[in-house]
Amino acid sequence: MAGTIGDLGEFGLIARVTARFPHSDNVILGPGDDAALVAVPDGRAVATTDMLVEGRHFRYEWSSGWDVGHKAAAQNLADIAAMGARPTALLLALAAPPDFPLDWIDAFAGGFGDECATAGAGVAGGDISASETLTIAVTAMGDLAGRPAVRRDGARPGDTVAVTGNLGLSAAGLELLRAGLSEPRACLDEHRRPHPPYAQGPAAADRGATAMLDVSDGLLQDLAHIAHASGAAIDLDPAALDPGSDLRAAADALAAAGGPVRDPATFLLGGGEDHALAATFPPDAALPEQWRRIGRVAAGSGVTVGGSSVSAAGWDHFRGVR
Amino acid sequence: MAGTIGDLGEFGLIARVTARFPHSDNVILGPGDDAALVAVPDGRAVATTDMLVEGRHFRYEWSSGWDVGHKAAAQNLADIAAMGARPTALLLALAAPPDFPLDWIDAFAGGFGDECATAGAGVAGGDISASETLTIAVTAMGDLAGRPAVRRDGARPGDTVAVTGNLGLSAAGLELLRAGLSEPRACLDEHRRPHPPYAQGPAAADRGATAMLDVSDGLLQDLAHIAHASGAAIDLDPAALDPGSDLRAAADALAAAGGPVRDPATFLLGGGEDHALAATFPPDAALPEQWRRIGRVAAGSGVTVGGSSVSAAGWDHFRGVR
Repeated sequence: MAGTIGDLGEFGLIARVTARFPHSDNVILGPGDDAALVAVPDGRAVATTDMLVEGRHFRYEWSSGWDVGHKAAAQNLADIAAMGARPTALLLALAAPPDFPLDWIDAFAGGFGDECATAGAGVAGGDISASETLTIAVTAMGDLAGRPAVRRDGARPGDTVAVTGNLGLSAAGLELLRAGLSEPRACLDEHRRPHPPYAQGPAAADRGATAMLDVSDGLLQDLAHIAHASGAAIDLDPAALDPGSDLRAAADALAAAGGPVRDPATFLLGGGEDHALAATFPPDAALPEQWRRIGRVAAGSGVTVGGSSVSAAGWDHFRGVR
Repeated sequence: MAGTIGDLGEFGLIARVTARFPHSDNVILGPGDDAALVAVPDGRAVATTDMLVEGRHFRYEWSSGWDVGHKAAAQNLADIAAMGARPTALLLALAAPPDFPLDWIDAFAGGFGDECATAGAGVAGGDISASETLTIAVTAMGDLAGRPAVRRDGARPGDTVAVTGNLGLSAAGLELLRAGLSEPRACLDEHRRPHPPYAQGPAAADRGATAMLDVSDGLLQDLAHIAHASGAAIDLDPAALDPGSDLRAAADALAAAGGPVRDPATFLLGGGEDHALAATFPPDAALPEQWRRIGRVAAGSGVTVGGSSVSAAGWDHFRGVR
């Protein structure tokens, strides 16, 4: 059905969007009442919220409604996984101009619901209102099933630093879009629809992870958060930081198109938004199968690569990747 | 400190805002990690979300930052109370232009934190980003402490209909502001800083309330939601619907200023945003002390006053109050 949000009205729009969301046993009472009821068998609810604003966090011309719905769910689900919890339910608030196309909203709801289903979470409730600026606010909840929450401050000298999931593909994809390029596809796909390794959060907690987070700002910057919160240093092993063929191809494509000359490692170390998980494990812990070792926690402070400091200039450069 | 959000940056702003929030034992792990941990001893988390957009839900010239913070918290806390739950923790996402004044944000955080403290809730986490349109998204969580959740669909013929809290003051206050008037003060105050009777939600649940909601769209419209969901009719007792002196004074002031001629009862029946609680109780239940009887559930459908239908024209008129 073509048309706009205004054609349908608030209640019609809520019914239409809600119909696209997956059923979940985690949601005891879903949309339609003053509030929802979400099962939290553990007695401690893990909860996080994120806001996405058109023109700031995504652009209509680079991402479809489905992409944005997928990403809005994924980035919140990843925050739940990064605590060692299983995502259970999401709440969605959306504000859009009254003349906003229904087709986009349909696609958005589809992408959002689809990624919730991937993670095993339901959509418990939400809110829809009008705004000049398309704005999406998502709250995700999760259950720890008796596990200790894995915070950022538990890394200890001697611990192993490890990651799981993609690193740098999303940032490379964004650079490619900026340069008007459409290959390599893996980078663009990951920028539009990141695939955080949700199940690996609880898996890491089960193996005794001492600190964990999802990589949203870039590996170096996010590991610096763990180092700072834990009062420790992190040194990465250069041999474990091979950017891989997609990031090399992206750097080559950008250079060939007269775009910025990029060392593919800068995507790996500085790129955010893939929502990989990074964690530290006790020295004697066996890593879960899908995790790879990339370094070690040491006494001191800050993050180094092969013992070398990352300069402030390098730092800003990495931040510039976003 | 004068200045703008941009002067402070994201992390500085988060630290500044967080410092104004109350401590709460409900918050096991607060802001600063990937997600928060909120105590849900009941094992069922009550959760709701609402978005407020400048120009749509509030205006800078009519409401201070403190007012908006207070109201953003209050309307979400009221939704939790309306399920029969005790509010435990809120999450706050805020998007504002980079040149937005820090003073307003400080006041907003003060009002938000203050109302959370009034309700006994903590602030567990949040998100801050940039947008052309000031937008606030709040998620509130609550705990049922073993009570059944009071939904909208449990009203049965013979049940008593009752309310607690203010009705119509906020809508009258909005009309007064539109007309450039500043008296009666009680109406303007309630519009800017509503005072939902949070503790009365659990109190009603303890007395066996069969259906409950908070009055956000207007008494008639919200009771129609209960009637519809419950498959029953509601008849209100005209003698129990005295608008009171403030609403009469507001109607008089509007007429004297050449504004719209309003029957003060229209504020009472059609005005939303005071976030009073309306509920139905079994015929033999003793109402909690602060509740007042206003009508009865009957077989049938729809909402009547003294047995008379409310016409569609009247309906739209009431909706026009907002």
